[in-house]
Amino acid sequence: MGELSMAPVHRMLKRAGALRVSEEAAEELRSILEIIGMKISERAIEVAMSAGRRTVRREDVVEAVRVLFPDLRLSKV
Amino acid sequence: MGELSMAPVHRMLKRAGALRVSEEAAEELRSILEIIGMKISERAIEVAMSAGRRTVRREDVVEAVRVLFPDLRLSKV
Repeated sequence: MGELSMAPVHRMLKRAGALRVSEEAAEELRSILEIIGMKISERAIEVAMSAGRRTVRREDVVEAVRVLFPDLRLSKV
Repeated sequence: MGELSMAPVHRMLKRAGALRVSEEAAEELRSILEIIGMKISERAIEVAMSAGRRTVRREDVVEAVRVLFPDLRLSKV
């Protein structure tokens, strides 16, 4: 754990419209994004390997997200 | 968009076991984590507001994730 830093995650909550954000809320969101990021990464690596590649490509990440979060609408908000 | 920086997201993919990662793959993962982070943030703010609070707390983020990603196992990997 612990790749993402706090400031960008805190800014995310502010940009979404939060007036005030507790440190614990930002820490929770950071932790969740790390978990989701690792789940997507692991799946993307499996996709790449099953295609016989050592390099993870954009398409592998897209496919991982499609499988893990089929309901996610990926329109850039 | 554009809060998260590339290096931590790239490290996430490497830590998950990727031998090589294309720049486009890391960029895609970054973009997806931003979208997911914004969706969680927006919902967490709604939860806080519906409770009559101006401050987003940890419990609001937890509730937002529970609603948005009911299947997500939040065990710290």
